[in-house]
Amino acid sequence: MVTELNEQTLAVKGFTFAATAANIKGVADNKRDDCALIVSQQPACCAGVFTKNKVIAAPLLVTKPRIAAGSCQAILVNSGNANACTGQQGLDDAKSCSQALAAQMEIDEELVAVASTGVIGVPLPVERVLGAIPTLCSALAAETGREVAAAIMTTDSYRKTSSRTVEIGGEQCRIVGIAKGAGMIHPNMATMLGFVLTDAAVSSDLLQPMLSTGVDDSFNSISVDGDTSTNDMVLLLANGAAENKPVAAGSDDAKRFKIALDEVLLDLAKMIVRDGEGATKLVQIKLRGAENDAQAKVAARSVATSSLVKTAFFGEDANWGRIIAAVGYSGVEVDPNKIDIFFDDVQVVANGLTTGARQEELATQVLKKAEFSVQIDIHLGAGCADYYTSDLTYDYVKINADYRT
Amino acid sequence: MVTELNEQTLAVKGFTFAATAANIKGVADNKRDDCALIVSQQPACCAGVFTKNKVIAAPLLVTKPRIAAGSCQAILVNSGNANACTGQQGLDDAKSCSQALAAQMEIDEELVAVASTGVIGVPLPVERVLGAIPTLCSALAAETGREVAAAIMTTDSYRKTSSRTVEIGGEQCRIVGIAKGAGMIHPNMATMLGFVLTDAAVSSDLLQPMLSTGVDDSFNSISVDGDTSTNDMVLLLANGAAENKPVAAGSDDAKRFKIALDEVLLDLAKMIVRDGEGATKLVQIKLRGAENDAQAKVAARSVATSSLVKTAFFGEDANWGRIIAAVGYSGVEVDPNKIDIFFDDVQVVANGLTTGARQEELATQVLKKAEFSVQIDIHLGAGCADYYTSDLTYDYVKINADYRT
Repeated sequence: MVTELNEQTLAVKGFTFAATAANIKGVADNKRDDCALIVSQQPACCAGVFTKNKVIAAPLLVTKPRIAAGSCQAILVNSGNANACTGQQGLDDAKSCSQALAAQMEIDEELVAVASTGVIGVPLPVERVLGAIPTLCSALAAETGREVAAAIMTTDSYRKTSSRTVEIGGEQCRIVGIAKGAGMIHPNMATMLGFVLTDAAVSSDLLQPMLSTGVDDSFNSISVDGDTSTNDMVLLLANGAAENKPVAAGSDDAKRFKIALDEVLLDLAKMIVRDGEGATKLVQIKLRGAENDAQAKVAARSVATSSLVKTAFFGEDANWGRIIAAVGYSGVEVDPNKIDIFFDDVQVVANGLTTGARQEELATQVLKKAEFSVQIDIHLGAGCADYYTSDLTYDYVKINADYRT
Repeated sequence: MVTELNEQTLAVKGFTFAATAANIKGVADNKRDDCALIVSQQPACCAGVFTKNKVIAAPLLVTKPRIAAGSCQAILVNSGNANACTGQQGLDDAKSCSQALAAQMEIDEELVAVASTGVIGVPLPVERVLGAIPTLCSALAAETGREVAAAIMTTDSYRKTSSRTVEIGGEQCRIVGIAKGAGMIHPNMATMLGFVLTDAAVSSDLLQPMLSTGVDDSFNSISVDGDTSTNDMVLLLANGAAENKPVAAGSDDAKRFKIALDEVLLDLAKMIVRDGEGATKLVQIKLRGAENDAQAKVAARSVATSSLVKTAFFGEDANWGRIIAAVGYSGVEVDPNKIDIFFDDVQVVANGLTTGARQEELATQVLKKAEFSVQIDIHLGAGCADYYTSDLTYDYVKINADYRT
């Protein structure tokens, strides 16, 4: 397996990309790309994971049943407007856009996915999106995936892309990921979006469980502020253009594909935490020894989302009392006298008690790093979970307090 | 019923108070009171509510079964050290303190409650507490409740007291409350504590459900940062010194007592939110129209604890998109097309859609106030709940990032 940390190209056989500036926000002289298109040369097998928020934006209402049907050929996405809390008009607008794209491409409308990210509660400027469609279709190219990654950014400070090359059924197959999100999640600018494209031949029946579990361990294991947007969506398209022997369930090919897919998803998720609003640190919460993995995840999430813990990270304070309290109120079974806590390799708590001032001093050095781990072992079983979080900073408050004013 | 907003005295028949400086923190020249004692002239009927955190501090392990037994005569409390995550030694220390107090007072040790608040994970300087006990016992007086309220403060910026006078069984009875807490909760300085004392004669069987439901609607309906401490405790003592006819279950006396008790509890809880670390605003989240009260509380809590919502309050931004998203991800049933949202009397959302820019401008004026309400009506049933929260500010980050450094 080849890892490309420096993405020179997001090329993946049979997929083309385009981006253009449609001035979705309606701001004078806005030349930033804000509409993008991803097209497969043929209908692709697909899978999707969508927000669990009960308030669901219009584009998700359109896209979700289409992905469930198992086939997708084009993804139309805009930033600058979430088309959320926009009622029947929002739904009509999302459908108009997908209809227009299908007509332009001469494909079945059911093969079109739509996605939006941006401000909530403002009608989508549908004429601008419709106006961008011919431009997008004529600009499609194999090498411009990075332009799509840029066009879907909102409060993101950098593009988020990742890829892997993996041998499947005798062919070198590519898995390419594009994501946006900063702050998990900022419902005003909105949303975590992820689009993962592969030229491997994998059936939708296999793709969906792979994506669901992969998202659980990546996008659903990160927290910047614990909020979940109305527009969150991750799509996975597999078009088979690599002409590999189709992946069989339970095969070594399936395992290799799953490992590479998980790596792409986790790369993207960690980029989102690193780019969290105001974040200065990436912290891995490693919960060990829970009764089972589900309990481990609950406890890890409780620590990862605690404002007090996150503020202590910002203050570079090895404040294990806040961590132990967050584990305690998570609701999972825990014996206070069996808890061990480490900052990287430095143990600060053994059997629920401090290991002393010297260890805390060493831990304080760990906290000065931009990336470190906190391992919490509760010694009750074999359950474990990893969660990624950021620190809570002055700049988080500034970005989120000042945004609309 | 008489409401005393300006507490001149916390006098309540048959109770005496004392506070002294024991230098629990061991800081040079620390003359601040940090040990306090509350004594009833006779064993009082009692009730208690304790932290749901699975990591429970030593004093709670000692106190909880004693309160459950239904009788209490003395409360010994210290600030400066939580005696939490201190293992067997912590438990031994808490018992030593209660034994020494019982011996000094010549009462059964089982009638002593102990409570602590302060730093986690540091052994209690038990000799200093033991040394303070004779001083406390000799200083007991009826008029010094406010000194107790001061001695138990940690990051609190002011004393929290409230009282009501209510006619019960033909006698004027008093209900007096003393609390501490700022930040819900700051596990390092730790803890929300509440002590409510009445001279009314009410049996423990009646007191416990009254206190439990009262705490649900007060201390458990506030949020500054969503964290729950290892040391949270609310005790209610009724010593019958007013010599009223004992309150009967379901009687008008019971109703009047419950109303006055609820008012004292809510007064104290709102003071804690107002004094939240870095808080500049007190916001009442009024959730209406849920399927039932429990669902309403879940949705209200989701809004009240959202970092994005709280930061928007600080930014004085009528950002209803964040509110609607927080309701949506709370997990309660909600129809996005039926949601109405008001800031005080200004409606900004009707049937899930914006009411326009003019209304948002008016709402922004509401947000400039130090206290306001956000009413969210989801129009699915008769369930309702109120929650009190604060804004999330630069100073919250500063206080919690810098505290130990």
